[in-house]
Amino acid sequence: MTTPGFVMSSAVSPLAPKTIPEMPPIDGVRFATAAAGIRYQGRTDVMLAVFDEGTSVAGVFTRSKCPSAPVEWCRANLKGGRAGVLVVNSGNANAFTGKSGRDACTFTAKLAAAAVGCKRDEVFLASTGVIGEPLRAEAFDGVMAKLVADAAPDGYDAAARAIMTTDTFPKLATARARIGKTTVTINGFAKGAGMIAPDMATMLAFVFTDAPIGSTVLQALLREGVTDTFNAVTIDGDTSTSDTLLAFATGAAAAKGAPRISRASDPRLGAFRKAFDKVLADLAEQVARDGEGARKLVEITVEGAVSKTSARRVALSIANSPLVKTAIAGEDANWGRVVMAVGKAGEPADRDKLSIWFNGIRVARRGARDPGYDEAAVSAAMKKPEIALKVALGLGKGRDRVLTCDLTKEYVAINGDYRS
Amino acid sequence: MTTPGFVMSSAVSPLAPKTIPEMPPIDGVRFATAAAGIRYQGRTDVMLAVFDEGTSVAGVFTRSKCPSAPVEWCRANLKGGRAGVLVVNSGNANAFTGKSGRDACTFTAKLAAAAVGCKRDEVFLASTGVIGEPLRAEAFDGVMAKLVADAAPDGYDAAARAIMTTDTFPKLATARARIGKTTVTINGFAKGAGMIAPDMATMLAFVFTDAPIGSTVLQALLREGVTDTFNAVTIDGDTSTSDTLLAFATGAAAAKGAPRISRASDPRLGAFRKAFDKVLADLAEQVARDGEGARKLVEITVEGAVSKTSARRVALSIANSPLVKTAIAGEDANWGRVVMAVGKAGEPADRDKLSIWFNGIRVARRGARDPGYDEAAVSAAMKKPEIALKVALGLGKGRDRVLTCDLTKEYVAINGDYRS
Repeated sequence: MTTPGFVMSSAVSPLAPKTIPEMPPIDGVRFATAAAGIRYQGRTDVMLAVFDEGTSVAGVFTRSKCPSAPVEWCRANLKGGRAGVLVVNSGNANAFTGKSGRDACTFTAKLAAAAVGCKRDEVFLASTGVIGEPLRAEAFDGVMAKLVADAAPDGYDAAARAIMTTDTFPKLATARARIGKTTVTINGFAKGAGMIAPDMATMLAFVFTDAPIGSTVLQALLREGVTDTFNAVTIDGDTSTSDTLLAFATGAAAAKGAPRISRASDPRLGAFRKAFDKVLADLAEQVARDGEGARKLVEITVEGAVSKTSARRVALSIANSPLVKTAIAGEDANWGRVVMAVGKAGEPADRDKLSIWFNGIRVARRGARDPGYDEAAVSAAMKKPEIALKVALGLGKGRDRVLTCDLTKEYVAINGDYRS
Repeated sequence: MTTPGFVMSSAVSPLAPKTIPEMPPIDGVRFATAAAGIRYQGRTDVMLAVFDEGTSVAGVFTRSKCPSAPVEWCRANLKGGRAGVLVVNSGNANAFTGKSGRDACTFTAKLAAAAVGCKRDEVFLASTGVIGEPLRAEAFDGVMAKLVADAAPDGYDAAARAIMTTDTFPKLATARARIGKTTVTINGFAKGAGMIAPDMATMLAFVFTDAPIGSTVLQALLREGVTDTFNAVTIDGDTSTSDTLLAFATGAAAAKGAPRISRASDPRLGAFRKAFDKVLADLAEQVARDGEGARKLVEITVEGAVSKTSARRVALSIANSPLVKTAIAGEDANWGRVVMAVGKAGEPADRDKLSIWFNGIRVARRGARDPGYDEAAVSAAMKKPEIALKVALGLGKGRDRVLTCDLTKEYVAINGDYRS
């Protein structure tokens, strides 16, 4: 499957990974893409994943009180725990579309279920793109039969590209792990370009494995896995109506001797859990690396907080501060703004115990400028594409880490000029 | 008193008021300014207000857990309820300066108290500018005697200019009201350029009246007054370490027959309260009009919420959303982003009951695009410098309103290039 006439939305982010990983096929899942003309011309905008019978599914979604129609559709179908097909489109988010949005989901699901021969409640849907415009689901009618016929085990790269919107590169990750004596594979792809951002920047991610894992266990793995990966990434603090992360386990590795796992506490899950989390972390980091207009990847570590939860809140307050983010864009180790962001987080903090590091150089210590602070060394460190910002609160043992990016004029240009 | 060589930090905001109000003198308070060379060259950077004996004082401050040294100084001195002198400098915020910061406050207070002949706990201090650099309080030594000697009742405009940082215009407001049969005056000035923004963008505001009002009553007036004025303005959601609003009542109008007010529930306070709130609202709006890089003043009204508190939270979620703010900068009535911001607020909201208006034109109704929505009319409306964005949640009777501005490339430039 090729991606005919695919056009990148803009120059590739300077933070993009140097290589795109080779994706080994996973038994029990096949991919296809098509250009249905939802909104874009000359590029693919629909991707289909067909699953063998017996595939388990789990999902986590946006916490928005105004979720998209496909999010509500998936939430309802997760109860069955089985997946037959996944249909994802870019160009239109099918969000805030009222009854016509629900109808579009039903229409698409009927079409896909008939084409692959599964039940309608085994169909999973995701949409990304403009909010508030009706999705013309009829467009899928013309491509569905060909999508099912074309579906092949090696279509990951094309699938990742078909769901891109303002993304500047496709986001793919793969890992292997043993369950019992059998090696299983975990593949995933995602799109940004905010976690956390609406319109053409909804976060969608899909993970696939041949491990024989029941839907309840898969759901537990996913819920735990997102805490320090996708939920620890923020671009601009905005939350999409459509954020969706789905995991599918085909169970095909059972034929190669992998034991069926039906409890999340099963000790044979240890290595798999690690590999699964690694794929989630890899995809989440790629999302941050492709934040709209991003020129710097910023890792914020907060330690010495009263708890991990408190550390997370302080880290997110720093990560979402426009003033911290613009300072980093300006390559300015402006720790005064970091103090400000710590102060506004509402969490326990004692100004006179605070220390702050930029890329390993301590710039503030116990509530004042570090006397050994060398402006030239810090200036040089701030020119790097990756910035590690560490804050020690000096209160307790709580520690956490989040990823974000800088806030540049390009972010404003992308989001200010978008619809016009 | 003139302001020698004063240089505006950049072109005046297109949202600036057309005229600067004439400020009538208030008996019992005199102003002076000086160029102490704290950070800037060729402009004033210190302002002094001297109060007659018996002046009451009240204050509200940043909620930051890492407040500046002057904020802590003022909080402690408010207990006495009396003011003899106010010293404010721009160029250095004296925040995150550890013991040297406290020492700078003590040094300045000692100097000012001696010069005007009041107690040290009747000295009030505010500083705005860079965070984390020691404030050389010795600089005040050279100008204090002349400041006290120069102090005159008509120095409002010069005072407002001396405390500016990234502000593009001085912010002044005045109102009159009767207490009993006596007319009293309320004057105020403020600086932005975020409410809510650190470094050179701390919000400072000072209000003066000749009304004979005790400090407890003044504190109650101030605390109630800020709720729908200064606390309803946001530039970027960031909270300064130094935000300070102080009110001073000289009581001089008692000599003209104004009754002394010692209870906040006194019915004779009605007209005064209204005028006082009007001055606060006027100054707060000017702060929003001078938001860094602002090209649009945005008033966000949320109605139909389950409570006023809930309406405020939804309104602030919209006002602080970078995606809503960049859309408005791009003159795009992107109500999909408004839905997103409503959804992420975490407050009760029902997507299918939502309606949204831009400058009076309904673009979304009951969870979908308004069928009568005329793109051309909305486009024309979005070109105006003032945008009224209304959201009806359709759930209850809670209503609130906040002011903000758009997010432009200039904001990023101002905050990204600032220290370099």
